[in-house]
Amino acid sequence: MLLVRRPIGKPVMEDFEWNEEVIKVDGNDGWMVILENMYVSIDPAMRGWMDGAKNSYLPPVKLGAVMRASTISRVIHTRNEKSFPLNSLVLVDDGGVQTHCVLRTALDQKMAHLLPNHNTNMPPPQAYLSVLGITGLTAYFGMMEKGKPRAGETVLISGAAGATGSVAAQLAKIHGCTVIGTAGSDEKCQWLLDNHICDQVVNYKKCQSGGMPKQIRLACKSCGSPKGVDIVFDNVGGQFLEAALANLNHGARIVLCGAISQYNTAGLTSTTTKNGKISKQPPITGPRNYMTLLIKRATMSGFVVFDYRKQYVEAIQNLASWIQSKQLIHKEHMFDGIHSFYPAFSSLFNGTNHGKVILNLKSSSIFQSRL
Amino acid sequence: MLLVRRPIGKPVMEDFEWNEEVIKVDGNDGWMVILENMYVSIDPAMRGWMDGAKNSYLPPVKLGAVMRASTISRVIHTRNEKSFPLNSLVLVDDGGVQTHCVLRTALDQKMAHLLPNHNTNMPPPQAYLSVLGITGLTAYFGMMEKGKPRAGETVLISGAAGATGSVAAQLAKIHGCTVIGTAGSDEKCQWLLDNHICDQVVNYKKCQSGGMPKQIRLACKSCGSPKGVDIVFDNVGGQFLEAALANLNHGARIVLCGAISQYNTAGLTSTTTKNGKISKQPPITGPRNYMTLLIKRATMSGFVVFDYRKQYVEAIQNLASWIQSKQLIHKEHMFDGIHSFYPAFSSLFNGTNHGKVILNLKSSSIFQSRL
Repeated sequence: MLLVRRPIGKPVMEDFEWNEEVIKVDGNDGWMVILENMYVSIDPAMRGWMDGAKNSYLPPVKLGAVMRASTISRVIHTRNEKSFPLNSLVLVDDGGVQTHCVLRTALDQKMAHLLPNHNTNMPPPQAYLSVLGITGLTAYFGMMEKGKPRAGETVLISGAAGATGSVAAQLAKIHGCTVIGTAGSDEKCQWLLDNHICDQVVNYKKCQSGGMPKQIRLACKSCGSPKGVDIVFDNVGGQFLEAALANLNHGARIVLCGAISQYNTAGLTSTTTKNGKISKQPPITGPRNYMTLLIKRATMSGFVVFDYRKQYVEAIQNLASWIQSKQLIHKEHMFDGIHSFYPAFSSLFNGTNHGKVILNLKSSSIFQSRL
Repeated sequence: MLLVRRPIGKPVMEDFEWNEEVIKVDGNDGWMVILENMYVSIDPAMRGWMDGAKNSYLPPVKLGAVMRASTISRVIHTRNEKSFPLNSLVLVDDGGVQTHCVLRTALDQKMAHLLPNHNTNMPPPQAYLSVLGITGLTAYFGMMEKGKPRAGETVLISGAAGATGSVAAQLAKIHGCTVIGTAGSDEKCQWLLDNHICDQVVNYKKCQSGGMPKQIRLACKSCGSPKGVDIVFDNVGGQFLEAALANLNHGARIVLCGAISQYNTAGLTSTTTKNGKISKQPPITGPRNYMTLLIKRATMSGFVVFDYRKQYVEAIQNLASWIQSKQLIHKEHMFDGIHSFYPAFSSLFNGTNHGKVILNLKSSSIFQSRL
């Protein structure tokens, strides 16, 4: 799936184009590995990569290029049997929104990671795109390195039913915290409570205009934290962030993980047209009550998961062991086929997704037969 | 000087009232100490205390009460000769904007601090309201505890010619940093350069609309830091903060010290009338590009100087020794007489002050004769 036009605001189907081409193999491709993509990770960060300006921790996707995405892929042709045996499963950092990908260079191969041999105690391979992949690692390092949860603290998480939010919430619970989550439907809120992912929930779509600070305050009181929250893990931005700032305890840490409510308002810094005029100012909303950080001796910080590469192995081991001990659950929302890219991506922004969004390019029967 | 009306936006003279009353002394005032105020500290934080809502790290000043202020005061009557000898000089945390103050209770006396005996090597007593007082300590703890300057780093300071900003800038220089300062006049900018307080300056009033990010970027390049700044020490907020966020180096620390550009827009959370309508939203501007914190792995944090009380003595010793070694200069802007309160306070917001604003209630001849 090619990005053929830079979206203005909300992406539309016409910003993408389907293209088929034949993978060329010649004698010079000494180490070439060809893989078929089985699972494609669909992430909010993709929106930033679609903008022309560098709004993200990764550069923009070039116009006419395949849309960037991590994949779980199967080796179907290999000239590097030692590193990438035939039929092995590989996590490819940029396998792309496409049916197959090719590792040609040493750099390509460095960005591809052989998955451990599967056994029945382990999570399924697609978990390496969700809870054991960048999504889960983002929750892990954001919560552990920036949030630094201590037993007895209260943690507020936006997008708590989302792929990253739900892992962040459970990590806080595992470390002895009380967790308040926000989500956009009663169904999601109920799911968070039923699965003990959150102790209190706020359906932000049911808050009256300007009512979110009060609802969060009430949730704090209900869980015995009338002074406010100690950690905020924000995936959403906008009104949520202001409501969170209005409910900080002394010494609170705000972890900036995302601002999905703002991604489609025109990107963080790119120019846009509004009322026919060219505006160089981002229409994104900044938290007007940011000086609460001073009054509450609080900290707001950002992080990028890739900075913690050296700790990935330890983090994945921890996450996997919590999954095994049933302290950590994860949920994937599968969309079938490469042509589901647009509805899958859109579900992240209209809030209709339930957990990690993944494109499933293989029918489950073929996949099951492999394991 | 009494606060008799809560200002809406910019305070006006009618928000304050002059009142005279006689200090009553009776037999029950066992430990009473009466002081005449010699110097009254005038600070931007006063604006927050004038609002009805709790916008500050201290509660609002009550309507009809004397406006809160730190003072350097001289003991003129004492029933506690041991702690407060006659004629001794005292720093009173809330001596108030008035000619005299009275310590009646044990708590009052705890909030009053005897100054060390003066000798000619020491800074003058009013320095305990500026560089050796809360103003200088704010710069000290903000820069040292939150900014954590390392030799070779680049530091950006708003309000660099102000009482706190100029101390923060010099602390960064003392620790081997390159300093870029913003100020509101060519005269202030020249003063910063002439006194080696800053290496590069930006007169924000001469920046075209939206031009501050570019001017800061050029200043970064001029001092060999094309990647941006490592520390931001912000006294101003508003457009400056957005311009600073647009020029962050990886791992930058933003220290929130104040937001003077925003204080008169209606307070941080208080209700206000605009176009005849009651608005519950603060019209203060939040930094729309705050997600730069994520991309740049940066941190924005607030602090309150009072949290570092235990380190005051050490900090004052350090500051005094830098003054003695001429690594640190300070500048006081004196206004004569208690009735100069309003023009003195206003000078902070219209930018006409030069350094720490202090009300001088004693003619210098009387004061000099005491030392």
